[in-house]
Amino acid sequence: MIGGGSWATALTKILSENGARVGWWMRNKDDVQHLLRTRHNPRYLSSVAFDLSRVFPSTELKETVEEADWLVLAVPAAFVQSSLDKLDRDSLKNKRVISAIKGMVPGKNVLVTDYVAERFRLAHERIGVVAGPCHAEEVALEKQSYLTIGSPSLGLADDFCHLLRNRYVKAYPMEDLDGIEYFAVMKNIIALTCGIAHGLGYGDNFQAVLVSNAVQEMRRFVHAMNPQPRDLSASAYLGDLLVTAYSQFSRNRTFGNMIGRGYSVKSAQMEMNMVAEGYYAVKSIHELNKKLGVHMPITSAAYHVLYEKISPAVELEILKEKFR
Amino acid sequence: MIGGGSWATALTKILSENGARVGWWMRNKDDVQHLLRTRHNPRYLSSVAFDLSRVFPSTELKETVEEADWLVLAVPAAFVQSSLDKLDRDSLKNKRVISAIKGMVPGKNVLVTDYVAERFRLAHERIGVVAGPCHAEEVALEKQSYLTIGSPSLGLADDFCHLLRNRYVKAYPMEDLDGIEYFAVMKNIIALTCGIAHGLGYGDNFQAVLVSNAVQEMRRFVHAMNPQPRDLSASAYLGDLLVTAYSQFSRNRTFGNMIGRGYSVKSAQMEMNMVAEGYYAVKSIHELNKKLGVHMPITSAAYHVLYEKISPAVELEILKEKFR
Repeated sequence: MIGGGSWATALTKILSENGARVGWWMRNKDDVQHLLRTRHNPRYLSSVAFDLSRVFPSTELKETVEEADWLVLAVPAAFVQSSLDKLDRDSLKNKRVISAIKGMVPGKNVLVTDYVAERFRLAHERIGVVAGPCHAEEVALEKQSYLTIGSPSLGLADDFCHLLRNRYVKAYPMEDLDGIEYFAVMKNIIALTCGIAHGLGYGDNFQAVLVSNAVQEMRRFVHAMNPQPRDLSASAYLGDLLVTAYSQFSRNRTFGNMIGRGYSVKSAQMEMNMVAEGYYAVKSIHELNKKLGVHMPITSAAYHVLYEKISPAVELEILKEKFR
Repeated sequence: MIGGGSWATALTKILSENGARVGWWMRNKDDVQHLLRTRHNPRYLSSVAFDLSRVFPSTELKETVEEADWLVLAVPAAFVQSSLDKLDRDSLKNKRVISAIKGMVPGKNVLVTDYVAERFRLAHERIGVVAGPCHAEEVALEKQSYLTIGSPSLGLADDFCHLLRNRYVKAYPMEDLDGIEYFAVMKNIIALTCGIAHGLGYGDNFQAVLVSNAVQEMRRFVHAMNPQPRDLSASAYLGDLLVTAYSQFSRNRTFGNMIGRGYSVKSAQMEMNMVAEGYYAVKSIHELNKKLGVHMPITSAAYHVLYEKISPAVELEILKEKFR
């Protein structure tokens, strides 16, 4: 497990309680010490106690990776490059990689799985993505959750599903790696925009229309990037969007809400003491779409607000005319 | 306007503020007196003041209907038969009818528009339905809302849209009368089931999966009843479902929540002092589906809980195995 955030913590709980031995790399030495001393991650899902005969927190990346059969990537997208920096090109040769990252590699505008495939010369058949309508916080509470593993190799997806399934987690394989990953990236843009609308005083009626139009926008984009038949009402697509867009706790929604209420991007980021994934996703998707020219009014509006300092009120006025 | 509830009140506000003269029939004499005296509906959206030079509250159904070009039906589905009882078969001959009712005629298991067409020998081209992700409460607050008018006559739909459009309401016509109406009925079943799940302690992760599976269930049913291509991510379908399923204020969700927490149907109804539309919708759709045999696990679960006294916990355990 690469990463010490809430999603990494939730997945480590699921995998280790199922019997897997989990080497758990995190950047912060104090957090590792705290985990080794108290069995709890001090920062995230701190109620969860880990069994240290199966969970091995460490700050040594190479060692952690070397001993693993599976690599689960769960750092913020913005840190994926720097986190994997120290690894040799061949160090993932016989491993299988699951990305739990919901973002694109900033600056490069590529999916994390594509980046990993190229950087480590891995076939896509050795790579998967985990998605699902799944708040990490509800995993900590052992509330019934559903995960989807997307991989061009259904065998790999199935194997990882097997590692995840337990009393409160159901997991299903799907072949659509790219579609699931793009949806996971874009849903943060939508949640951010829902936040902007809410911050401006728009209500639930408008949000329902925004999310409906979002599904259409995401469908157009994913189809342009990777055309194939998809049932977008599947949990991996629609469900994932809903759990984020309707969450009061989503960082993307909170960030957007502050923007809608008049905070600058900088002061919203300082206030939150963190960066919402959607902020970067907006830029990546917007730039990717320059070549494609897909009609993406929501992403464009978010881009104008976040990167061109156009007033959120003005952008939402324009946006609402485009919805139906 | 036939009906004195919150939706009737919101639509009367929109139509009359747009300049239409609205004869407003409601059953309760005291409410009519209160409206005439104070310009406010005492029971619903009581902050809204009506212009009595354009709004004419009355308990005289025949008179109200006689003078109208359009009839807007906004009574609970359970009362549609008894409310229209006094009208002659020919009394709607030259009128156009819009149903704002989100339910089916109990006992008959037919759509309200089909009932009206037969009862008053009206062609479906003179009938429409108003749907939309639209809490009446947000109309009272003049929050941006979107409505869809469904009618086989796009001319009729367009004309009624024109009567609705204002600063905060956008309205669009669609041809799919039946699909929109069935969706409006079934969304209450879904909201009710979301409430049951919530009452049992299921969280947001599960609700996102439930709603995703609901879209698939509704698609199967509507397609079996009336096959034609539909983009179910349109606001009239998905948006309408979302605004209901994710509303903390939905009566159907509240009713379901009480059932999930262990109330009997009777005591939940007594506690709420009213009947949730979804309660009847479950029975109608379940009975209609006996002929069709569509796979409808959510509707079946709700039916078993509400009409066959099977424990909600047991039904949800079965249901969750069917989801993905």
